[in-house]
Amino acid sequence: MDGDPTARLHAPVVRDDGVEDRIAVEEPLEIRVRGRALAVTMRTPGHDEELAVGFLHGEGLLTGPVAAVGPTADLAANVVDVDAPLREDARERRFYTTSSCGVCGRGALEAVAVHAEPVPPGPRVTRSLLADLPDRLRQPGFAITGGLHATGLFTADGTLLVLREDVGRHNAMDKVVGRALLDGVLPLADRVLCVSGRLSFELVQKSAVAGCPILVGVGAPSTLAVELAADRGMTLAGFARGGRVNVYAGGGRVG
Amino acid sequence: MDGDPTARLHAPVVRDDGVEDRIAVEEPLEIRVRGRALAVTMRTPGHDEELAVGFLHGEGLLTGPVAAVGPTADLAANVVDVDAPLREDARERRFYTTSSCGVCGRGALEAVAVHAEPVPPGPRVTRSLLADLPDRLRQPGFAITGGLHATGLFTADGTLLVLREDVGRHNAMDKVVGRALLDGVLPLADRVLCVSGRLSFELVQKSAVAGCPILVGVGAPSTLAVELAADRGMTLAGFARGGRVNVYAGGGRVG
Repeated sequence: MDGDPTARLHAPVVRDDGVEDRIAVEEPLEIRVRGRALAVTMRTPGHDEELAVGFLHGEGLLTGPVAAVGPTADLAANVVDVDAPLREDARERRFYTTSSCGVCGRGALEAVAVHAEPVPPGPRVTRSLLADLPDRLRQPGFAITGGLHATGLFTADGTLLVLREDVGRHNAMDKVVGRALLDGVLPLADRVLCVSGRLSFELVQKSAVAGCPILVGVGAPSTLAVELAADRGMTLAGFARGGRVNVYAGGGRVG
Repeated sequence: MDGDPTARLHAPVVRDDGVEDRIAVEEPLEIRVRGRALAVTMRTPGHDEELAVGFLHGEGLLTGPVAAVGPTADLAANVVDVDAPLREDARERRFYTTSSCGVCGRGALEAVAVHAEPVPPGPRVTRSLLADLPDRLRQPGFAITGGLHATGLFTADGTLLVLREDVGRHNAMDKVVGRALLDGVLPLADRVLCVSGRLSFELVQKSAVAGCPILVGVGAPSTLAVELAADRGMTLAGFARGGRVNVYAGGGRVG
């Protein structure tokens, strides 16, 4: 609900037919913890501090509160530094993420398993509310570029609290969760998360780690997304469009 | 063009309203080189050998031909092993990719730069052909699940040669390039690649490394995608739908 003056969602590009178009901005961001590089992600600039702490939290790497977070002295460098205690083995792995990468840094197959607790009971919502949430994701950037994913954080009665857009769908989710972490309102036990695209494993994982019991999306889920949601006790709903929605897991909260 | 009996694009899921739906399959795949794990990617099963060699090639890790590639003895393990010589420093980095991750494994900001040569002059195509290519991406999986990305390899007159679907858009591209590598037809100097979604930096990078001069997509490009295409001399076209297309770079090939 805040306006971030550093956000730069789109930039002008002259097409080959001479028309000036506005394109979703994608640039690399290096995430450092206490001065040392840990990850690079391809993202849309803006809300970089939220993205950094949301990413670290979602990967289960933080062992204590975030004391400070901000850009490094060279503001043009696309680097953000987080002052927070890190899990000891975090340095052994390097994290490289792109505009659409989430589980990056996890080890072998077994490491894809989630370290999230089962989610809290959470609120009940109506099917019609779930179906309507994507329409409440008013995307200023997408309206102009057609090239940005969005994640919205909603109350159980459908009030939009936070909206973030990014070329990477996992970045938009990280920014929303990072905002909640910085505001001290995690876990998101009474909230609903809504995404503008497909429901992958990684987005369910991030929602679960944030403690949010309900995730709804405009697009299709994957099998692993449904399995993970069911395993964590989450409600997962997809194809929310045109007044309809499919519930794939956790239907007990929907009625 | 081929039918892969191991492909399993979708699986039945019973929704909470009792309806049986078919969902895009997403499972982790471990990519090994000569027996040692190098990367994990979240992908849709099928054409795993193509995915593995396409990924390794796209990351610039191969230093010689692929002698063999196939599943390990435990077919249920979701592991594929590639017998090929690897760049010496490949082992120092670990690669972890997800259903939508591409540049994974690259180092710091400067490592996002591309190691691809400028693409060859390539063919000329008409604007109307570019606009029409997405309609020729007949997606058997998407038609059922609504949850799969696709990449198609076309001749310059619009004949579809290879089509691959995956929950991860970069995987679909890796599979197509991997098929070409296994068939010994790289670089794709006279071909056109078409993707079903947005045009990110990573997809342009993969096309450039494969030596393909023309990339067209149904969705929007990002700024970095346009910049990279222009830098490599590629033709990049987006929003190919409804008989229209926008050309963002390399318009000299379009007329």
